[in-house]
Amino acid sequence: MAIAKTELEFMKEALPFWNALSQNQKERIEATASAFTVKKGQSLHDGSQDCLGLILVKSGHLRAYILSDTGKEITIYRLFERDACIFSAACMLKNITFDISIEAESESRVLLIPTAVYNELNESTLAVSGFTNQLISSRFSDVMWIMEQVLFTSFDRRLANFLLEQSAVEGSDTLHITQEAIANHLGSAREVVTRMLKYFQSEGMVSLFRGGVTISSRKKLEKLSEK
Amino acid sequence: MAIAKTELEFMKEALPFWNALSQNQKERIEATASAFTVKKGQSLHDGSQDCLGLILVKSGHLRAYILSDTGKEITIYRLFERDACIFSAACMLKNITFDISIEAESESRVLLIPTAVYNELNESTLAVSGFTNQLISSRFSDVMWIMEQVLFTSFDRRLANFLLEQSAVEGSDTLHITQEAIANHLGSAREVVTRMLKYFQSEGMVSLFRGGVTISSRKKLEKLSEK
Repeated sequence: MAIAKTELEFMKEALPFWNALSQNQKERIEATASAFTVKKGQSLHDGSQDCLGLILVKSGHLRAYILSDTGKEITIYRLFERDACIFSAACMLKNITFDISIEAESESRVLLIPTAVYNELNESTLAVSGFTNQLISSRFSDVMWIMEQVLFTSFDRRLANFLLEQSAVEGSDTLHITQEAIANHLGSAREVVTRMLKYFQSEGMVSLFRGGVTISSRKKLEKLSEK
Repeated sequence: MAIAKTELEFMKEALPFWNALSQNQKERIEATASAFTVKKGQSLHDGSQDCLGLILVKSGHLRAYILSDTGKEITIYRLFERDACIFSAACMLKNITFDISIEAESESRVLLIPTAVYNELNESTLAVSGFTNQLISSRFSDVMWIMEQVLFTSFDRRLANFLLEQSAVEGSDTLHITQEAIANHLGSAREVVTRMLKYFQSEGMVSLFRGGVTISSRKKLEKLSEK
């Protein structure tokens, strides 16, 4: 799985530490990086089982989530074009003791620097270590936001927020997403989502169809999400 | 507030990057580090208002928590002897967008490297950058643990866990902590804590007194916490 020239160019541009690398280091990445396509719904990383390396999203989008023993989930962050993720190389990070899973939410093209290579760079080069730091901090902030939402925000507001976010991701007011999937994003139960969506429908904010939700009043949803 | 020789020695030992520093860098820390005592209940860091620097606990213990607009809290981690905290220098960390507060849970002696000094070290020295990385990763893991607890663990089990942890911290089965304070640790409401503690009492796990809780059956609590 060698990497095409255009994809290598994309990587050079997207990684802020590239210019701080030595010629040797650059060649090592060029020789070991790979690119692959992940289908919608396909898993890319599954907890501590995997330790692929640093991934960089070239197109499409991924979601990272945690999973309980009983199969309950919550989405902790999403990755879009040019976003990098270090938790797919979590084994190289001391003190990271949690497992996350990553799957594609739409067909995605992903570039990869293998863990061993990235770890070498991280341990020898200040600019790479600084980048790792920023990546972890950024995801940490995402997770703190989710935690504040879960703890301090009412469920109606979280659901309104999610529908608006999902609409931005899909670029449409018609969201092809099941109530089960919404529950998994929000760390909630399907019954709770169903009840709240029916309430939203009765208030004229959304209309429900088999396998999805249509936003009928963006204004009302936005008002609720800002409550 | 200069730093005493014994406290400087403690700092040298507790900071794993010390030996990787240049003579100049060591002298810069020695000249700028300070030490101070924080009384029980006193605030040490209050969200984005403060940006003290890297703190290192010499004795006592601190708790870090987040606070909602409505005054609801949850403890996200605790710091004990030799623990360092970087979020008291959060302003130097790119991509950290959340605010935490830190207060002393018992009278504590705290050593401090000012933000500007630590930031210089962090941006120039790989060993320091690696240490920052490990600190952030470690707190991130703490927060993920809390999040999993909040999302996936029943409240009775979380409360049992908390009482056992608190007993280890206080070194006693008699815990001088109000139900309000327990609620703040767990991100819950006082009423919920009261109800569950009364249930624990009826099951012979604890007995309640004004201003505190006594663990009467550690065995039963442990069994519940492992459920």
